[in-house]
Amino acid sequence: MRLRLPPSVRFGAGSTTQLPDIVRECGMRRALVVTDHGVLAARVVDRVLDALDVPRTVYVCGSACATEITACRNALPGHDGVIAVGGGSVLDVAKAAVALHGSEGPLESLYGLERSQGPALPLVAVPTTPGSGGEVSSHAVVTDGERRHAVSGPSLVPRAVVIDPDLTATLPHQAMLACALDALMHGAEAYLARAATPFSDALALPGVRRIVSSLLSPDPEELSAGCLQANLAMAQANAGLVHALGYPLTQRYGIPHGIANVVVAPAVLRASRHVQEQRDADLASCFGAHDFADGLTALLDRLGVEREFPSGNADELATEALLYGPVRANWRFDATVDDMAAMYRAAP
Amino acid sequence: MRLRLPPSVRFGAGSTTQLPDIVRECGMRRALVVTDHGVLAARVVDRVLDALDVPRTVYVCGSACATEITACRNALPGHDGVIAVGGGSVLDVAKAAVALHGSEGPLESLYGLERSQGPALPLVAVPTTPGSGGEVSSHAVVTDGERRHAVSGPSLVPRAVVIDPDLTATLPHQAMLACALDALMHGAEAYLARAATPFSDALALPGVRRIVSSLLSPDPEELSAGCLQANLAMAQANAGLVHALGYPLTQRYGIPHGIANVVVAPAVLRASRHVQEQRDADLASCFGAHDFADGLTALLDRLGVEREFPSGNADELATEALLYGPVRANWRFDATVDDMAAMYRAAP
Repeated sequence: MRLRLPPSVRFGAGSTTQLPDIVRECGMRRALVVTDHGVLAARVVDRVLDALDVPRTVYVCGSACATEITACRNALPGHDGVIAVGGGSVLDVAKAAVALHGSEGPLESLYGLERSQGPALPLVAVPTTPGSGGEVSSHAVVTDGERRHAVSGPSLVPRAVVIDPDLTATLPHQAMLACALDALMHGAEAYLARAATPFSDALALPGVRRIVSSLLSPDPEELSAGCLQANLAMAQANAGLVHALGYPLTQRYGIPHGIANVVVAPAVLRASRHVQEQRDADLASCFGAHDFADGLTALLDRLGVEREFPSGNADELATEALLYGPVRANWRFDATVDDMAAMYRAAP
Repeated sequence: MRLRLPPSVRFGAGSTTQLPDIVRECGMRRALVVTDHGVLAARVVDRVLDALDVPRTVYVCGSACATEITACRNALPGHDGVIAVGGGSVLDVAKAAVALHGSEGPLESLYGLERSQGPALPLVAVPTTPGSGGEVSSHAVVTDGERRHAVSGPSLVPRAVVIDPDLTATLPHQAMLACALDALMHGAEAYLARAATPFSDALALPGVRRIVSSLLSPDPEELSAGCLQANLAMAQANAGLVHALGYPLTQRYGIPHGIANVVVAPAVLRASRHVQEQRDADLASCFGAHDFADGLTALLDRLGVEREFPSGNADELATEALLYGPVRANWRFDATVDDMAAMYRAAP
């Protein structure tokens, strides 16, 4: 068992004001602040810049594709640390850029698990969504052409994390929902994963329970705490088959990642329940249900989450899902391409 | 809420063999291995040295007193990292020496909470007991004259931790028991602490449950996992009133720390139950009991733990316990010196 943990996490409304301490702990004297247009437009980054007391340059990135990551890496010289302020995509860009900066080869040489082993600049993550998980994990997800690749290794774990629920206040409701459902599935998949450990188990269930309760009865602080727990669990145990089936829906139809996962989750869970009945029941209890898929479906109905996707492409989608080997292999049930096609047909 | 976490934890029988990876991740090229006579005599350190592939010097320390810490600090020049191999005392010496090395003032200037803020050499902790908690916490406990002081700050959290249950195999039964009961009270006090968080709560209960079950039905791997969870909880939420009353018993009568705590715990818990009934009941459930103090007492009886101490000094002990302000203040019940004297009288 291996735990990879962010050494320092500050959590709670107003914790952005602690950035000077954090920057000092990380030894940064000249930081590159990485963010994106959306975060800039919402004026969230202003609050972070106001809190900082070191010289910094703001770098505005696009989506987490190979070109953007190389461009961000090229902005790093002259800086001794990175502060990433944004959602999952900004964190992916900043983390992959830091990994690339510490590596000798090109970005493609880092695609895969644990390929990034070089020294790295310190990275502080300031997520502006309830938590993609990138703020606590040792990997980034990079789009290159038609595919998503992991870039992972010890240097990708942020040195410090600031989770300030105040920063998520301007997030539109639908975006917030997609982020929360993303974290919910992180916790659930960590709990169902082959790689689950006593440590990930202990955090996954209370994380899922908190997310469900704070979606039903809004509470930003509780939601952030639940997302942190679920994401810390996922950072240890990794995701599973739901993610393998979710990625092609995002790639092909642009369905947001957090939504794509819950679109396919009930079908995946129903087909897998026989191998993990107790764990399924434990998760179901977080929804006050007897069956996890039923509990999740009822929650999604209650929240009005739209889950349609073009039908008729189940076999092609399943072939694409086959590419996501590590998350597929992290399931207690070996799903064939035919199994996965059947799951797409049974979804949503 | 703040989490301070060791960035990398390897756990499991045989994990000592992963030391070369860990040392590389920490960038160490010339390590000082800090250990003590007991660990040397048990030949446990040989297994660690065999696994290492970098030049190293072995430094043998005594107990965690101010003189030993200064001596260890003086052995640091010429090394770019420390590997501490031993129980709680060795970890305390190594951590305090690293903090002193990174500070400008003398050791006394670091006594207190969060006084150690300097840069620090990377420290790898290889505990040889089921876990004092020092392997995951941001503080060391230092004896100076009659008193124990905390030295704490971000630089005291080990950069990496190797928890290999194989290394504890040679530990005598009584020493193992004292260590396990120490970790048990860490988890329990973290759960009862004022500073408890969703994160510490999630780890504390399964940690205590695992320790209890593996004491009743020996399982070194489960015991180590439970100790790790309980100690991670304590590292976030800190200890409480039981520790305040336990320290003077160790200081005055030399009762091992883990035993001193369980000697006083039932009396402290009975006097505090009214302010934390639900949490007391949650902990009691780990023992299959309705009341935590009853469950703990039954476990100690079953394990044959000797808990006598010279009576008649309750008032003096209570006056000494008063000195441990931070752990006393971390209790949900404000205990006066008279309350504490009554607890000593009611113990064991």
